[in-house]
Amino acid sequence: MNGTPHTLVQIPPGVQCFVGPEARRRRAIEDVVLSVFEGWDYEEIIPPLLDYADVFAGPALGPKTYSFVGRDGSLLALRPDFTSLLAKIAAGRLRDRPAPIRLYYSGEVLRYEPPKAGRQSELYQMGLEQLGGVGPAADAEVVAIAAECLDRLGLTGWVIAVLEELRNRVESKDADGVREACARHGVPSGVAAATALLASLGGDPAVLAEAEAALSPWPAAQGAVRELRAVADALEDAGLGPNLAVDLGEVRGLDYYTGMVFRLYAPGLGFEVGGGGRYDGLLARFGRPMPAVGFMLGLDRVAALMGRQGADPGTAGPRVESLGDMPLGKALARARERRKAGGRIRFAADGGEAVRPAGETAP
Amino acid sequence: MNGTPHTLVQIPPGVQCFVGPEARRRRAIEDVVLSVFEGWDYEEIIPPLLDYADVFAGPALGPKTYSFVGRDGSLLALRPDFTSLLAKIAAGRLRDRPAPIRLYYSGEVLRYEPPKAGRQSELYQMGLEQLGGVGPAADAEVVAIAAECLDRLGLTGWVIAVLEELRNRVESKDADGVREACARHGVPSGVAAATALLASLGGDPAVLAEAEAALSPWPAAQGAVRELRAVADALEDAGLGPNLAVDLGEVRGLDYYTGMVFRLYAPGLGFEVGGGGRYDGLLARFGRPMPAVGFMLGLDRVAALMGRQGADPGTAGPRVESLGDMPLGKALARARERRKAGGRIRFAADGGEAVRPAGETAP
Repeated sequence: MNGTPHTLVQIPPGVQCFVGPEARRRRAIEDVVLSVFEGWDYEEIIPPLLDYADVFAGPALGPKTYSFVGRDGSLLALRPDFTSLLAKIAAGRLRDRPAPIRLYYSGEVLRYEPPKAGRQSELYQMGLEQLGGVGPAADAEVVAIAAECLDRLGLTGWVIAVLEELRNRVESKDADGVREACARHGVPSGVAAATALLASLGGDPAVLAEAEAALSPWPAAQGAVRELRAVADALEDAGLGPNLAVDLGEVRGLDYYTGMVFRLYAPGLGFEVGGGGRYDGLLARFGRPMPAVGFMLGLDRVAALMGRQGADPGTAGPRVESLGDMPLGKALARARERRKAGGRIRFAADGGEAVRPAGETAP
Repeated sequence: MNGTPHTLVQIPPGVQCFVGPEARRRRAIEDVVLSVFEGWDYEEIIPPLLDYADVFAGPALGPKTYSFVGRDGSLLALRPDFTSLLAKIAAGRLRDRPAPIRLYYSGEVLRYEPPKAGRQSELYQMGLEQLGGVGPAADAEVVAIAAECLDRLGLTGWVIAVLEELRNRVESKDADGVREACARHGVPSGVAAATALLASLGGDPAVLAEAEAALSPWPAAQGAVRELRAVADALEDAGLGPNLAVDLGEVRGLDYYTGMVFRLYAPGLGFEVGGGGRYDGLLARFGRPMPAVGFMLGLDRVAALMGRQGADPGTAGPRVESLGDMPLGKALARARERRKAGGRIRFAADGGEAVRPAGETAP
């Protein structure tokens, strides 16, 4: 098997390795985010790292899946995503649990990316799903949790862009009529997409009322905008208005979303730090039809953003005590005593190492 | 690709899924163990989940490695082990850091196990390595850390079996003489292995003095026993005597250990809960020859053992507050207030769900 030549100590392109302060920063971020998830009474799930490849066989994820033959001859895949996996588990192992089921996860996903794309193959995602979560209440809750995460991480200037995929709500023959209606109400209309309604509404949630009125001939689309408006209104009432932007443009590259979609942006990062949305069709694929909504944050992106914003996840460790020169048995006995008293120690029976703050990399 | 037939919601054999209280128990165990590692001033490393397959190409791990072709055509493998990976990173990315380098890890490994063996393919390991750690001081430190982990987890009755692989220390032509010398000194001798010296010394560390005397004609073996004695003496001085057992029998199934080896046993589990040892030859494979010692605990085994011993990792969550019946926006605003005050809430805008302790599974 020949690939790009590599030395014995090189790691493959697209995989990651974090040491010391970098690892500590990631763990601090994870602690903050998971404590928020817990605070909204979501339960952790630790799903398998690999599963049958058919679970991930959608058009968006399928081609990005690392697959291989398992020990019983089945085609297995490394998870490229948590949402499909959780939907499957809710329909299988948790089938007797009444909905809504609130689950969160934190772990790695692996994606097969083209060698030249410069994208990571190994990503770390923290997210949650409300399986069986219905209507604007569930949508608004999930967005509010995402907002609390960004807040508690000490990030500033972040924006929640709430989008709605209207393409599926309008018959393609109606697309022209919809465009005209929008134009009549002063709502900017998309050009490229056949069914795009309202590309970029400029971010002002108030425009949703206009859009709703404009869409009266198309009840499904109007209903979708009405629901989105209920979500946006709730978020505004809850004090999140200043962080909210609304966009009814075409939503692309989404595998399973069926309703509200949102993306989290912040100054200092040229792409979203996370996002989520409603996927009411996914669970039916696994035999337990029910609505669902969720979101996730990319740990790698959060870490990059915090670095650029200078946000401090509090990674400085306590001071390290060093042990003086003494016989090994006595030194070890003293080390154990100090540990019992809660101390952080660096064991060096020969006393040769200096005390240093734990947060620092060794020289 | 055909394997064993499976339904859409089945998970493959050998992989794991944990939900709710089970996930919480695992996280509580991890928190305890990692706080001990931090307490001894080890730094976390988050190594890649996959690497070039040649890293794991030893006789013990090689056949258990899940391998596949990566995006650049190289043969990649899911890590079956952390020790090789950390040795490689110490020799590569961390080559400019002076030894000793103290690193800990916590994560999954994957092993290709025969379908019928009933063994898990997906295992979760928590461990540490002291790369460049020399002599009895490093050995004793690592054993003492392992002991503290078991202690803090609330486990009782555990035993550290310290072993020594003497096979490599004695020329095979000397094996008979060694056996005779041991017999002369009343030290029980192994029968099966050509070079086995002292199969099962009955666990009493005091017998090490006798063994050391008996081995005077074989300086390398005698030196090894002398080092092991220094480790055992230090552990006794540090109060770990009652938990210690010594065994100079043949050590099998070890890929890279070169000196002291230890295994952790406890009542309630028929196999070791973890173990470790000295591997002075591994780093040379990656171009940075230096001694090293480490150990790991299997999270799955720790969890099983705690279950059987009834040890409580403290998984009960705080009580959940539920929100009463009110309009969505107001309910969300109140939820956010309660969260700011540190409350754990279950958001149900319709007020339809009862308050329940967070540790309980939903009915």
